[in-house]
Amino acid sequence: MTSPDRSATTVQQERRPGVMVYDSYGKSRVRLTKVNRHKDRHDLKEMIVDIQLEGDFSVAFTEGDNGPLVATDSMKNTVYVLAKQNPVDSIEEFAMTLAQHFVKTYKQVESATVHIAEELWHRIEVDGKPHPHSFYGANDEKHVVEVVATADSLEVESGIQGLKLVKTTDSEFSGFVRDKFTTLPDATDRIFGTSADVSWLLESGKHDFHSIYTTVRKVVLETFATHHSLGVQHTIHEIGQNALAKAAAIREITITMPNEHRILFNLKPFELDNNNEIFVATDEPYGLISATLRRE
Amino acid sequence: MTSPDRSATTVQQERRPGVMVYDSYGKSRVRLTKVNRHKDRHDLKEMIVDIQLEGDFSVAFTEGDNGPLVATDSMKNTVYVLAKQNPVDSIEEFAMTLAQHFVKTYKQVESATVHIAEELWHRIEVDGKPHPHSFYGANDEKHVVEVVATADSLEVESGIQGLKLVKTTDSEFSGFVRDKFTTLPDATDRIFGTSADVSWLLESGKHDFHSIYTTVRKVVLETFATHHSLGVQHTIHEIGQNALAKAAAIREITITMPNEHRILFNLKPFELDNNNEIFVATDEPYGLISATLRRE
Amino acid sequence: MTSPDRSATTVQQERRPGVMVYDSYGKSRVRLTKVNRHKDRHDLKEMIVDIQLEGDFSVAFTEGDNGPLVATDSMKNTVYVLAKQNPVDSIEEFAMTLAQHFVKTYKQVESATVHIAEELWHRIEVDGKPHPHSFYGANDEKHVVEVVATADSLEVESGIQGLKLVKTTDSEFSGFVRDKFTTLPDATDRIFGTSADVSWLLESGKHDFHSIYTTVRKVVLETFATHHSLGVQHTIHEIGQNALAKAAAIREITITMPNEHRILFNLKPFELDNNNEIFVATDEPYGLISATLRRE
Amino acid sequence: MTSPDRSATTVQQERRPGVMVYDSYGKSRVRLTKVNRHKDRHDLKEMIVDIQLEGDFSVAFTEGDNGPLVATDSMKNTVYVLAKQNPVDSIEEFAMTLAQHFVKTYKQVESATVHIAEELWHRIEVDGKPHPHSFYGANDEKHVVEVVATADSLEVESGIQGLKLVKTTDSEFSGFVRDKFTTLPDATDRIFGTSADVSWLLESGKHDFHSIYTTVRKVVLETFATHHSLGVQHTIHEIGQNALAKAAAIREITITMPNEHRILFNLKPFELDNNNEIFVATDEPYGLISATLRRE
Repeated sequence: MTSPDRSATTVQQERRPGVMVYDSYGKSRVRLTKVNRHKDRHDLKEMIVDIQLEGDFSVAFTEGDNGPLVATDSMKNTVYVLAKQNPVDSIEEFAMTLAQHFVKTYKQVESATVHIAEELWHRIEVDGKPHPHSFYGANDEKHVVEVVATADSLEVESGIQGLKLVKTTDSEFSGFVRDKFTTLPDATDRIFGTSADVSWLLESGKHDFHSIYTTVRKVVLETFATHHSLGVQHTIHEIGQNALAKAAAIREITITMPNEHRILFNLKPFELDNNNEIFVATDEPYGLISATLRRE
Repeated sequence: MTSPDRSATTVQQERRPGVMVYDSYGKSRVRLTKVNRHKDRHDLKEMIVDIQLEGDFSVAFTEGDNGPLVATDSMKNTVYVLAKQNPVDSIEEFAMTLAQHFVKTYKQVESATVHIAEELWHRIEVDGKPHPHSFYGANDEKHVVEVVATADSLEVESGIQGLKLVKTTDSEFSGFVRDKFTTLPDATDRIFGTSADVSWLLESGKHDFHSIYTTVRKVVLETFATHHSLGVQHTIHEIGQNALAKAAAIREITITMPNEHRILFNLKPFELDNNNEIFVATDEPYGLISATLRRE
Repeated sequence: MTSPDRSATTVQQERRPGVMVYDSYGKSRVRLTKVNRHKDRHDLKEMIVDIQLEGDFSVAFTEGDNGPLVATDSMKNTVYVLAKQNPVDSIEEFAMTLAQHFVKTYKQVESATVHIAEELWHRIEVDGKPHPHSFYGANDEKHVVEVVATADSLEVESGIQGLKLVKTTDSEFSGFVRDKFTTLPDATDRIFGTSADVSWLLESGKHDFHSIYTTVRKVVLETFATHHSLGVQHTIHEIGQNALAKAAAIREITITMPNEHRILFNLKPFELDNNNEIFVATDEPYGLISATLRRE
Repeated sequence: MTSPDRSATTVQQERRPGVMVYDSYGKSRVRLTKVNRHKDRHDLKEMIVDIQLEGDFSVAFTEGDNGPLVATDSMKNTVYVLAKQNPVDSIEEFAMTLAQHFVKTYKQVESATVHIAEELWHRIEVDGKPHPHSFYGANDEKHVVEVVATADSLEVESGIQGLKLVKTTDSEFSGFVRDKFTTLPDATDRIFGTSADVSWLLESGKHDFHSIYTTVRKVVLETFATHHSLGVQHTIHEIGQNALAKAAAIREITITMPNEHRILFNLKPFELDNNNEIFVATDEPYGLISATLRRE
């Protein structure tokens, strides 16, 4: 095959119009399974790891000089090697280990961001007892963490992703702006369905990450269940305050909730009443509400 | 806009080359939410309904004469109207109600197939007690049913879709054909991961569908956990036999399992041993194994 | 770890309640890329291959005796080996090669089903000329084929999957059953949107599969565009007849079309007219219509 | 149903631990279809609109006082009303119209962010001529825009999302860091496959957005095809510089490319050579590389 003429679309190297103001690269969706083969039981951890590095890599972009680049394939290898050499019982601690590894090992790396999403498994029960090595899938909710490490800082943000929730009453929405674009009636009793994403930045220092995760998850479930909601905004704020009250290690918490509408089906054409009983669940469009609360 | 000339691509009406040998139509993904507002608690049912009708509709195809057609929009309405007028506690019974409705109401309908997939919700616990009206999402596994009704027959096939399972030992695969296309080594101890689809045809007559569903689900979980698997085929067969043994109402059962491979990561280049500990979970390619067992 | 007691959930081997009436297994989503490095250009083929075998494999299920099993991993290897040894320019011919390989090589294989979905790429144009080795993604429509081979038969069904279509006029739907479940008004001018699946069984013998594929695709596009549709059923039938008329090698054709509704947005509350201009596209629920036409 | 006791999980209102430092809300996935019924042809525009507002909404969160809230349902209505009253030929201009509407109409709105993703359709050709009202789906690539409006600013970022690209040669990757985590060999001739996301911030003022979009898309395609790539980073930078050189209205451009690996299948066990011919396409893990270039 003849070599293509590249000059056509390439402007002169000497004077390029732009300067690179941001760059980043890494490996995404590295899927790790680790089995801890204890004497009396096996522990199973499955997770998906994403890594992004920032630092002094500009010659790879501007010159095609890959000298400073850690290959993303090597990042993938590093996940498996460090998973062998370290416990992965806590995704927070494993993400910290990984992020710090890249910053410490390669001087050109200024910051490393590691995101882990853990696949959740429950033990199967046989005759009422948890089975030593067999598991079934928990819900599609994920336990996640994002760690950002630099030479002298380390930030850990744990989270819950996709916790599906619905309550059939104790939820209102009224008193909002009513103008010529408004057709929604006030609702004094509506269904509130969502799939919550919650993430929390931790104070620096050592933590029992699992216990904090468990506490926040319980706060989300219980607050959602018991709080009399005057709107998604109202519930989000209450969850945030309650989580800060219950988990002292949390510096800041962000809650994001789609409002996954259940729309009352109109039964009037069929001469039937719909006493808040028959609904159409819809995926789109959906409201999307988010807030971040910081400890004072 | 001028009327387009249609003659170009349309062959003569008098002599068409084909005869229609099959046709079917219906409505898919009708999403129903029903709330049963009991005094002390609310029950929540959410499901997705698909309907397909077969019968004497050929003039709609050949002539564009829609006279015999029940509009798919009317099918959608019917789901909500019948959901108002009937309990939907059992998706099997609601699917039967729907399928029989179409066959009985419209003489041109020869058979009606109704498929329902139920979204599973668990009650949130607050202070150790199930909350009366708040729920969180169960796993993405679905409870499904398919009912086929004609004027004088009714077939009910219940099922479980997407039950994620993994066991970390007690699973082998060896002794298979070894020829020039074979590179897979024998495995005496491998991870077995899958997402099981199980469906069962019921003997005609009345049944406690929920109890049968619960029994089959328990058999799948317990057999998967405790059976020493010599291959996915072996486990599938064992589940089928055990389900037939435990649930007398089942006439025939089909189990389908993808083999969602966990591949041992090669740690040798890093001078580390991998004692069946570090794996790569993969989505593709995957084995896919299926069997149907009928009661003798 | 102590060995689990398996007797609990396993019924007696001597007398099992069921008999296996169907079984099948294989490998799914084997992803193949082949580059043909011609002197003046490269040809690129990318496809996803699924294989299922039926035959005399019952001891693997009933006894865990894997003796007759061709490992699904070996099936995967076979795809790549045969792709090296054969052209893959036609997915129909490559699927035939693969399916016949399994039937001929392994006497326990009674039938082999091979499904291939081809990823479609277009050449990038540079200065108005197709580039010799660079491609961009065609639409997410796929070219597919399913071949079923036995010792003495071979059936080839080619297809188009997910061809997205929309016409903004020349489509009606009226005269359908109007009863107490009906709220849909007659429509004399509606949008018709769909994502067509079309598949055709070929007469036995040799064919120019690509030319047939091209002909059918052109018939689908042109008939959809120019036919005055009185309903989805009507259009489906017309496409089927026209395809049979234009492609003599087709024995039978199946067309399936979801009716992806565009719903007129109600602008009356805003004191505006909607002259068939502003619509809401919806994904669910959707009508689903299908027909098979056979050459007389 | 008795009223649940809410005091349990709610901390005292007087002293909450947190202060809200960020909040935002809006409507996502508003799906708009607009048909422009010209005399000689119809134009079709389909898009998905997401809206997020920031401003003085805190009482809705802290008190459940919805007074300042524009209901997300009203935002949805607004999309359809403004689509009726304005052209939607340019998603950039329609997004500007929408974003400015919210800022100008509601004094509590400090900023409005509108994101639009356009579904791309091509006209069907019949007898070599574009059909006046029938269309087929373009590739799943989207044309997107994000507009952020405040009382005195307006920022427009256009983009291309998911442009699938592959080249079969003229791509290398070598000279990267080689240490104990490295197993990847240097590659002097590899396949380069990606799905590019490109977005560009425009200088303030009026622009022919469609022409800029067309120019950037052509630069991406041609640069990808003709540039001799020493790495994904290298190609990204070249695309950025060329786009800045060709489109004077662009202030800043961001290119993000997953490296969708095609892995050479090892044919040695089968005593065959693989002359850069047979590959396995993989979805995960993947490299992910991004850069932003600003006009100097």
